[in-house]
Amino acid sequence: MTLETLSEQRCFGGTQGFYRHASTTTGGAMRFGVYMPPLVPDAKAPVLYYLAGLTCTEETFAIKAGAQRVATELGIALVTPDTSPRDTGIDGATGDWEFGEGAGFYLDATTPAFASRFRMYSYVVDELPALLAAAFPALDATRASVFGHSMGGHGALTIALKNPSRYRSVSAFAPIVAPIQVPWGQKALPRYLGGDRDAWRAYDATALIEDGARFPGTLLVDQGDADKFLDVQLRPEFLERACRSTGQPLELRRRAGYDHSYWFIQSFVEDHLRHHAQALRG
Amino acid sequence: MTLETLSEQRCFGGTQGFYRHASTTTGGAMRFGVYMPPLVPDAKAPVLYYLAGLTCTEETFAIKAGAQRVATELGIALVTPDTSPRDTGIDGATGDWEFGEGAGFYLDATTPAFASRFRMYSYVVDELPALLAAAFPALDATRASVFGHSMGGHGALTIALKNPSRYRSVSAFAPIVAPIQVPWGQKALPRYLGGDRDAWRAYDATALIEDGARFPGTLLVDQGDADKFLDVQLRPEFLERACRSTGQPLELRRRAGYDHSYWFIQSFVEDHLRHHAQALRG
Repeated sequence: MTLETLSEQRCFGGTQGFYRHASTTTGGAMRFGVYMPPLVPDAKAPVLYYLAGLTCTEETFAIKAGAQRVATELGIALVTPDTSPRDTGIDGATGDWEFGEGAGFYLDATTPAFASRFRMYSYVVDELPALLAAAFPALDATRASVFGHSMGGHGALTIALKNPSRYRSVSAFAPIVAPIQVPWGQKALPRYLGGDRDAWRAYDATALIEDGARFPGTLLVDQGDADKFLDVQLRPEFLERACRSTGQPLELRRRAGYDHSYWFIQSFVEDHLRHHAQALRG
Repeated sequence: MTLETLSEQRCFGGTQGFYRHASTTTGGAMRFGVYMPPLVPDAKAPVLYYLAGLTCTEETFAIKAGAQRVATELGIALVTPDTSPRDTGIDGATGDWEFGEGAGFYLDATTPAFASRFRMYSYVVDELPALLAAAFPALDATRASVFGHSMGGHGALTIALKNPSRYRSVSAFAPIVAPIQVPWGQKALPRYLGGDRDAWRAYDATALIEDGARFPGTLLVDQGDADKFLDVQLRPEFLERACRSTGQPLELRRRAGYDHSYWFIQSFVEDHLRHHAQALRG
């Protein structure tokens, strides 16, 4: 398991690094970022995974969210995987920003065309944590939380609901809460998972909760009311209804005037980091 | 003086906007960004100009520096002009990241090829403030400070030294303090200003101080010691020597392990904003 350091730069007293490795799960090179806060000797930092949205990479959040300042204060490491395998050469995997490369949807594909490479669920849940534990002695990979944006908010919510003992907290900015019921999901899920809609439910936060999944803590969600994707793609009311009818705690905060961008994310990222720090330190 | 709004997005309770207008000074369209913090009714925000470095645009600082959070807290507007005129069609103005478009050096060119368009000094000092005063009633353009990075640090220092009554404070990240004496300046200054090296001294912070210019306040400079441009292009010791020998107050802070990037800038931008806020409120 060789890790290649692409860059490491000092930031807020810690180090923002970008790395590449040969991933066995996704069958090709994967990139990710790690922001390692400054630590006293022998201390270890818990890990907060951030899953980015459509078109984004391992760099987007690191560059645009302004989270390193707060991560330094709280002593949390930020890990930002890429949003999909790259350079797959698979027919149909490029040329559409809503599907394929840059749009992995944090699932394990089962269709013949995509099953060998598009396995971001297992990559994020299993391979990447194991790699981090081996390669970064200053990380405590046993203390982990997860959050994300849009498609990555979907990833964070579904991954936490499917692995409630592996993540101490979960939050999302403008997540796709019910991909089964919206165009982004209705395009991507059949191509990755085939036509059986029951199989889609394993990668839909709302359906997971309806089907009995629970997270032992509050789902924290921020959603701008000026988000152009709100009414067609995001539909937080689906999640709200499922949580209310099942007793899953949810804090959904609607933010007046905010859109879908990192201008929105950076405005509330400190709140999210403090939410996760409380769980990671507890 | 028509101002075109390219985008306006909510951020930290204020508005990050990008705008375009036909500039009389530079003879073409110019872009700039304004971060307007939230204000109580009838309040006005003082203006802090940020001048970016080689290859950057009006967007770079706004996206990468994480300054809006602090600007909201302090009630300061952030104005980010582009680094040069664009689409000039001038022979030699493109294709070299160290000269021409994206590398205006905040001077008024006098050579025949560049004199009509490359007038970023007058644009930043005169046209842009007048435009802001007319187009943004919530700005108090009479209260202004200036800072910048690299080539923009050069711009901030020279502009403040040449106009000490128009700016209340000045600071810089990793500035080019003596362009006359370093390769970046030795390439750009003759092309913009011709071969008379005496003319170059009007756009060189170290030379301006040697020639008698003073700023009525401390020049605040942060410089990373892992900056790959430090020894050849930046040479803060030239500024240090000129300030020491003339009594110009300078606070030069060498930052261990930091490089030339926005990872460095974002780490110390809050310090700079607080420095300027003190002057802008006083």
